[in-house]
Amino acid sequence: MLKTDRDYMQLALDLAASALGNTNPNPVVGAVLVKNGVIVGTGLHRKAGEPHAEVHAFNMAGEHAEGATLYVTLEPCSHFGKTPPCANLVVKSKVARVVVATRDPNPEVAGRGIRLIEDAGIKVDVGVLEEEALKLNERFIHNMLTSRPFVISKFAMTLDGKIATQNGHSKWISGEEARSHVHEIRNKVDAILVGIGTVIADDPQLTTRLKTYDGKNPIRVILDSQLRIPLEAKVLNTTEAKTIIVTSTSNVDSEKVETLQNKGVTILFVEKKANRLNLEQMLDELYKLGITDILVEGGGEVNASFLREGLINKYLVYIAPKVLGGKNSKTPFLGEDLQSMDEAIELNFESYEQLGQDLYVVAYPKKR
Amino acid sequence: MLKTDRDYMQLALDLAASALGNTNPNPVVGAVLVKNGVIVGTGLHRKAGEPHAEVHAFNMAGEHAEGATLYVTLEPCSHFGKTPPCANLVVKSKVARVVVATRDPNPEVAGRGIRLIEDAGIKVDVGVLEEEALKLNERFIHNMLTSRPFVISKFAMTLDGKIATQNGHSKWISGEEARSHVHEIRNKVDAILVGIGTVIADDPQLTTRLKTYDGKNPIRVILDSQLRIPLEAKVLNTTEAKTIIVTSTSNVDSEKVETLQNKGVTILFVEKKANRLNLEQMLDELYKLGITDILVEGGGEVNASFLREGLINKYLVYIAPKVLGGKNSKTPFLGEDLQSMDEAIELNFESYEQLGQDLYVVAYPKKR
Repeated sequence: MLKTDRDYMQLALDLAASALGNTNPNPVVGAVLVKNGVIVGTGLHRKAGEPHAEVHAFNMAGEHAEGATLYVTLEPCSHFGKTPPCANLVVKSKVARVVVATRDPNPEVAGRGIRLIEDAGIKVDVGVLEEEALKLNERFIHNMLTSRPFVISKFAMTLDGKIATQNGHSKWISGEEARSHVHEIRNKVDAILVGIGTVIADDPQLTTRLKTYDGKNPIRVILDSQLRIPLEAKVLNTTEAKTIIVTSTSNVDSEKVETLQNKGVTILFVEKKANRLNLEQMLDELYKLGITDILVEGGGEVNASFLREGLINKYLVYIAPKVLGGKNSKTPFLGEDLQSMDEAIELNFESYEQLGQDLYVVAYPKKR
Repeated sequence: MLKTDRDYMQLALDLAASALGNTNPNPVVGAVLVKNGVIVGTGLHRKAGEPHAEVHAFNMAGEHAEGATLYVTLEPCSHFGKTPPCANLVVKSKVARVVVATRDPNPEVAGRGIRLIEDAGIKVDVGVLEEEALKLNERFIHNMLTSRPFVISKFAMTLDGKIATQNGHSKWISGEEARSHVHEIRNKVDAILVGIGTVIADDPQLTTRLKTYDGKNPIRVILDSQLRIPLEAKVLNTTEAKTIIVTSTSNVDSEKVETLQNKGVTILFVEKKANRLNLEQMLDELYKLGITDILVEGGGEVNASFLREGLINKYLVYIAPKVLGGKNSKTPFLGEDLQSMDEAIELNFESYEQLGQDLYVVAYPKKR
């Protein structure tokens, strides 16, 4: 039976989590209203443009909201967006107390929601299950703090660290469960990014193969500094998902640009930096195009560029129970050679579990 | 409270397991005698040359053995080795029933112990916790079936599958807990094997750094087909452990052989096979020298040779929360390149757990 602040906040977090990937660019938020031990209202933010979590909870509670405690996973908003500010609604509802998991990092909110409620004489407690709430909205928080998409590096490798044979053969490293897990993840992100090498070698479709009620196909982003993409590539000839090709401002084949644009492709021009596409500039631009998170799916040179620039925010790794060997087999991160093991980028393992035959590891860069 | 056959067998297995690595070339064995729900005798085989598990249990039980049930993790022996056959002792003891986890794969026993006991009119049940018992004695069973050492491949790598930078720098991939775990494992095997490349690059001592009461230093086996080992190498100038250098019959520098032998080193000559040292012949010879298990610690070419010959019986992998990258960084298995991912050697993950900062994975080759 739910009893404590943590219990109710956990319920609010669970409600919120169910909409992960659905609410971009908004955060996921859950709200629970409790009066005399009875849950009188629940709500969650289901999708950008639809009502906030608190609105649903107050609608359900009606007059029972008065004197109740509101549990909400993120500070109620204080600004007019697509909906009126929730902090005003909270005040009007005459709840007795508000429990907030974490402050809103959005500079337009940043404590103002809480202050507005407190100024109305309502007690506010902040920080219940805060760590969980921050993790749940890691993508949104990163967006707010950096104005860039949250970058997730994903790869599948053998137990000896190989992602393909020397000639690029990689089908299939992972088992079925892991592969369908990848499709679930693709279904939750705004974009998938690969290098032109991967397009030329594998000609992937880069669409999700899930048929869910409001499944989305993430935008396909191709790094192609010299615009080498073959016009018959599948990513140019499937319409389920949009395609953005990122190329260099200094290397323009205007005829090919036009042909690609006529195929509905967006061409994003970025500067070069140290003879490579400037990934930071690219992320700035992609964020402006509404992309809040990106799954980077390699190959090894692309992965290494993100790595060396310190741009990877999360790692999803599938390790298959296989040993490949081969002195020219491909590995997940290539790039420049380092002199010492001390120069490796340090991570923390967040979790690991078996997914069918494979091991699935989630890791974050160590905070400095 | 212990009550069932499985409970008592588990106790016998736990007793046995405590001596793992201590009993080579013998198996580990545990025995428990139970009469009217009281444990009247317990025993385990502590070390080759010392009494078998059953002997200790019967000594403890004395007259209480009559009418008791004997739980024993391995079929009692029927042959005269360093001690008289335990099956005779079991018969003499007048126990009412014997529960055996698994038959002895030793061709000198192979069901004869059980038959001897049954012929005396004592009921014998075989197969309680058999899988656990077989795993516990995997090394011994492999020895009996193949007359070769049990080969364990061990490596530590980053999350992107690198074991060293291009110039061989690898200190330290793993954290302290994992490194001390490696020393515990070295302390339980008869031999550690590395290639001459590792000796030249790292000049390791290859000794265990545990100071336990009867800790042993495994024999160091160096694969060195051209006898390139520098005379000042640490493995030649530390006396805590014996060293065996495996070299080719076709490439004899008799002066160097003599110098090495004068340093106390054993030189093992084996044939070449496809221009490499014949590892199967080497294993046959090492087993004759009393080596029942070997920890293969690389590098990548040596590991790959064992892999391709199908000689690895178990994998111990430490995965560090680090990403190194580097297109020339070293990976755990090199060797010949394959055309297709389907040619990878398939494994099963046995277990995975966190060891300090690192992930520790145990895997076995898939049975065909």
